[in-house]
Amino acid sequence: MVKKLHPKLTERVSQDVWAEGIEQPVALLELIEEQPGVIAELAGYSVISSRQFSREQIVQLCRLAAKYEAQQIFSQFPLTGKILISAFYEPSTRTRLSFESVWHRLGGDIISITDPSTTGIAKGESLQDVAEMMNHYGDVVVLRDSNNGAIYEMLEGLRIPIINAGNGTDEHPTQALADIYAILKWRPDLVQDDFPEEKKITIGIIGNPARMRTVRSVLLFLAKFSEGIREVVIITNSIQPFSDDQREELEKEGLSFRVSNDLDGSLPDMDVVYINAIAWVGDSYEEHGIEYKLSKDSPLKKDAIILHPLARGEELSTDLDKTDHNWYFAQARGAVFVRMALMSSIMRF
Amino acid sequence: MVKKLHPKLTERVSQDVWAEGIEQPVALLELIEEQPGVIAELAGYSVISSRQFSREQIVQLCRLAAKYEAQQIFSQFPLTGKILISAFYEPSTRTRLSFESVWHRLGGDIISITDPSTTGIAKGESLQDVAEMMNHYGDVVVLRDSNNGAIYEMLEGLRIPIINAGNGTDEHPTQALADIYAILKWRPDLVQDDFPEEKKITIGIIGNPARMRTVRSVLLFLAKFSEGIREVVIITNSIQPFSDDQREELEKEGLSFRVSNDLDGSLPDMDVVYINAIAWVGDSYEEHGIEYKLSKDSPLKKDAIILHPLARGEELSTDLDKTDHNWYFAQARGAVFVRMALMSSIMRF
Amino acid sequence: MVKKLHPKLTERVSQDVWAEGIEQPVALLELIEEQPGVIAELAGYSVISSRQFSREQIVQLCRLAAKYEAQQIFSQFPLTGKILISAFYEPSTRTRLSFESVWHRLGGDIISITDPSTTGIAKGESLQDVAEMMNHYGDVVVLRDSNNGAIYEMLEGLRIPIINAGNGTDEHPTQALADIYAILKWRPDLVQDDFPEEKKITIGIIGNPARMRTVRSVLLFLAKFSEGIREVVIITNSIQPFSDDQREELEKEGLSFRVSNDLDGSLPDMDVVYINAIAWVGDSYEEHGIEYKLSKDSPLKKDAIILHPLARGEELSTDLDKTDHNWYFAQARGAVFVRMALMSSIMRF
Repeated sequence: MVKKLHPKLTERVSQDVWAEGIEQPVALLELIEEQPGVIAELAGYSVISSRQFSREQIVQLCRLAAKYEAQQIFSQFPLTGKILISAFYEPSTRTRLSFESVWHRLGGDIISITDPSTTGIAKGESLQDVAEMMNHYGDVVVLRDSNNGAIYEMLEGLRIPIINAGNGTDEHPTQALADIYAILKWRPDLVQDDFPEEKKITIGIIGNPARMRTVRSVLLFLAKFSEGIREVVIITNSIQPFSDDQREELEKEGLSFRVSNDLDGSLPDMDVVYINAIAWVGDSYEEHGIEYKLSKDSPLKKDAIILHPLARGEELSTDLDKTDHNWYFAQARGAVFVRMALMSSIMRF
Repeated sequence: MVKKLHPKLTERVSQDVWAEGIEQPVALLELIEEQPGVIAELAGYSVISSRQFSREQIVQLCRLAAKYEAQQIFSQFPLTGKILISAFYEPSTRTRLSFESVWHRLGGDIISITDPSTTGIAKGESLQDVAEMMNHYGDVVVLRDSNNGAIYEMLEGLRIPIINAGNGTDEHPTQALADIYAILKWRPDLVQDDFPEEKKITIGIIGNPARMRTVRSVLLFLAKFSEGIREVVIITNSIQPFSDDQREELEKEGLSFRVSNDLDGSLPDMDVVYINAIAWVGDSYEEHGIEYKLSKDSPLKKDAIILHPLARGEELSTDLDKTDHNWYFAQARGAVFVRMALMSSIMRF
Repeated sequence: MVKKLHPKLTERVSQDVWAEGIEQPVALLELIEEQPGVIAELAGYSVISSRQFSREQIVQLCRLAAKYEAQQIFSQFPLTGKILISAFYEPSTRTRLSFESVWHRLGGDIISITDPSTTGIAKGESLQDVAEMMNHYGDVVVLRDSNNGAIYEMLEGLRIPIINAGNGTDEHPTQALADIYAILKWRPDLVQDDFPEEKKITIGIIGNPARMRTVRSVLLFLAKFSEGIREVVIITNSIQPFSDDQREELEKEGLSFRVSNDLDGSLPDMDVVYINAIAWVGDSYEEHGIEYKLSKDSPLKKDAIILHPLARGEELSTDLDKTDHNWYFAQARGAVFVRMALMSSIMRF
């Protein structure tokens, strides 16, 4: 090797991983008892809303994800010969690549529609007709659409399951699965029913529950674990942080809310800090609370973890990447395993 | 499951299928004697025109499609390790996804060119050079191009087979295979040579044979079964419904034509109604006879079946979907199996 | 078969191959002794620059390529379950399809990012965050980017290997591997250390080493075989044919240069003629020396071979295709096998 060579090029790639929480799904795996019947219930269902999942189903999916993550060896390919229709009608990389990676790891093949302008939809085809077509060509559909209602329209014509990968400003339940999986890996004891007051956690959400589908979906999941949650603090400058009866529904399920526009004043209380600044709306996006930023200088609780659905902008400083607060990389990694758990469960029919 | 949930989400997906003709390829399978030699003749050929197929080859391909459709189990992957080059230079979803689905079901892998602007063609590369490249990278090419002659140019440079998935206004032979497969499933007796007058059928084509590649290709196939066809009625308001010597060629092969601009007056005679309103021309499309519409209120013969290459527009009302006239969904479904039959036959070399 | 049929359609595809050099990797295979340890050194490395490879590594990679090319049977799929992330942020077909074909031939699966506007990058995501994502979703990345430095930025965040498929005006090392593989198939004796003066070859490069990444990368490889190279003649009308210390670096490694703007006067001396007229710069390209053209009428040495990275424009006449000078088709074909050799070596970890 001559000079002029970038130092990284004289090193073999390393599988060392420094991000917190990235390697320890084992505790979760050990704590939760396997209940195969609960997973079996999922076979053949479409997934559109976080509301569809029971607490037990979430816990068992996280257990299965932990099993995949702990083994890291996929010597079996249960989905050989199965075809995923990857339909992303809205810009996306992470979610699309995540689903496609998962599907290939499970042995399946993929056919894709990425650009609506290259599709029959350009000819004014109805979504029900598109659905009818998909019945013949694949075994499951993953859809992202900027229109909240499109997935419900397709559901009418489908005889194969469809998975919601983000429908407008409404929901993004598989991202929420990744979020709850990260939280449960960090604190496996949250799966317990009985919870002493001093162990309860405070969750901060920097974002707008009315407009952000990731936040909407994860709140529905957090509600299933409300015994362990002291309070959810919403940090926002929006005058309408909740939509319609969103708050009422979540409170009825057991969550307590506080809304504040003071991030730094609230941070010292938070055990989990969930931050997101982008809400996708149609072909564009809205930014929410971009004046709220997290960095190494933020008054974070010593053991607090930070979650972010990624991709991030300026709201989350890279100077946090190499700190123990960084659980967003663990969350991103876990997204693969929890989607693997979900897809293999759905397809067991 | 809480309230607020779409009723469809509390149901497991159903494999029940209500569309007519979607499940009965068995009769066809039983009526036709297997002739493996006829299929073997197809190995290693490119497919560009409906003219290439003999009546026996069409019948045996439909037989093989029926076998695939009846079994519905693809436990063998004869094309493992084989690569399809999916080259769609014109907007398409159905045909592209259909070929890609078929190829994966047979075990093969796919590399795709969907957007000419991301290809070497943007650099002004000749189609023969593109063909030379494809020889090295794949085992078969599927091409859709808005230029009628492009596929013939590529043929000059290719040493692997190429399949025409629509070349401008010229032909679309694999769609025609799907069409004839649907017709033969509906009336397996059409494969017989000897045909009593009273059993002959009248086929209506609502569209323009001069400009529509789907119509051009299916007429060439219908000509092979002219013993069973009393008359083909072309419903059009075009003053030039045929191109060059198109009509002469088809009549010589045995078809009788009548041209009419009166749809409702002609419908009561038709046993098969083939409707299409779009002809792709270059990057855009022409609409033909959009004043001709089919709906539940149309004076259809009681047992008439409707075919449509899809995607549909307003010319075909969705109120027909749940009637016995709907064979267009069966036709779409069959497109998968008949392409499966074709591709596995072509690749047997 | 009726009349009106293109004559090619009545022929089965032929596997006959007329292009020179396309079928004879055997001599190379026999001349080089296998050194498994040298290939093993490559496992787990990223490939960004031609500078990374030792002469021995190049020779052994070409040997492995020759083995793949001679056998032509890929009954084993060593990369089953492995995922390639195909990230082409700049227009490309040949290189992308070549890598994708190679990966599939080795049994692996692919997830693709072709259009930056459909990716998270549109949201202003940093390349390091993209790299972190890729760690979770795939096993290796192939990147083409019009920005010279992008691949180095990604390298910072990656824990899986990345392969440079062209970084701006800088390098394209796997194309250079294809080039050197073609040269070594043509003259296997160039792998020898000891070289009689009369057997030395003259290499002509029609292009601009300062601006063309393919030329930059292949020159670094040629320098490893300088014992057998009398002179490299650069044909250019540029007043600055070399960048910075490019010429000095290459001369230090043993190459002798002559720069000329007279193509036809220089051709009679050249044993290898490497021609390229396009340099990719950003989203567009520069043309260099388009007044230099090769055709059957060029004063080529009788045994001279012509190489071209393709796609070609007017600089290389198609009337040379069916002559013995045409080694550019052999070079294109070899690109598949040498990338196969590289990727299977890199992934052996």
